[in-house]
Amino acid sequence: MSLSIPDVTVAEPAFHSSECPKVSQVLSRIGDKWSVLVIMILSRGTRRFSDLKRDIGGVSQRMLTMCLRGLERDGLVKRTVYPVVPPRVEYELTAMGQSLCEPVLALGNWALDHIAEINTAQMAYDSKDDAD
Amino acid sequence: MSLSIPDVTVAEPAFHSSECPKVSQVLSRIGDKWSVLVIMILSRGTRRFSDLKRDIGGVSQRMLTMCLRGLERDGLVKRTVYPVVPPRVEYELTAMGQSLCEPVLALGNWALDHIAEINTAQMAYDSKDDAD
Repeated sequence: MSLSIPDVTVAEPAFHSSECPKVSQVLSRIGDKWSVLVIMILSRGTRRFSDLKRDIGGVSQRMLTMCLRGLERDGLVKRTVYPVVPPRVEYELTAMGQSLCEPVLALGNWALDHIAEINTAQMAYDSKDDAD
Repeated sequence: MSLSIPDVTVAEPAFHSSECPKVSQVLSRIGDKWSVLVIMILSRGTRRFSDLKRDIGGVSQRMLTMCLRGLERDGLVKRTVYPVVPPRVEYELTAMGQSLCEPVLALGNWALDHIAEINTAQMAYDSKDDAD
């Protein structure tokens, strides 16, 4: 089962619409911005909670905790608690989490490459609204 | 400026943390599940609103309208209104939207390939919680 790169001259759908609920079920978890950023950072190796919070910037303690629990529940991130005082908690990608790195980094790269173009489009859109 | 596929033995970061706010700014828009599904469907060609709503399934009129406006504002989708009665409105990807297809389809394919493994991980996580 695979989604193909589109060929608009071909009548076959790039994917079956019946797959939408399943795809959206997964994308709703991996598609949120904090998850993508956490995966990008953990792709470099094991990190503590405080490392992740500092590197991401602008994420609340609560949001990052929820994000990490969701990723752990999905089997993408492994959480290890070391029985020291105070407890040391480390996060790392599982094998499945590692396999997600390539498409996530591709999307992240696309985002970096197109920030300026998107900003220009938004300004054009917003000024058009003003003129109406 | 580019994010690289990670090499955990190398000390250099896969991306600079200073880029996080910019990346998350873009990902917060393209990373939501409806946007991804709309882009996947429009990768096949022009669609009307009702086509999109039917193919996606489970999306409200309001959510799809907001999603399409956001994509239009970002310069990813072009909206064309034909002056007929009733007005016909069609949506298609712009050149920038087309360039987003490849990373989005890669992510969609990953999602399709790993749905079962994620479901298994979730059941294991949830049953562990019950035992605690």
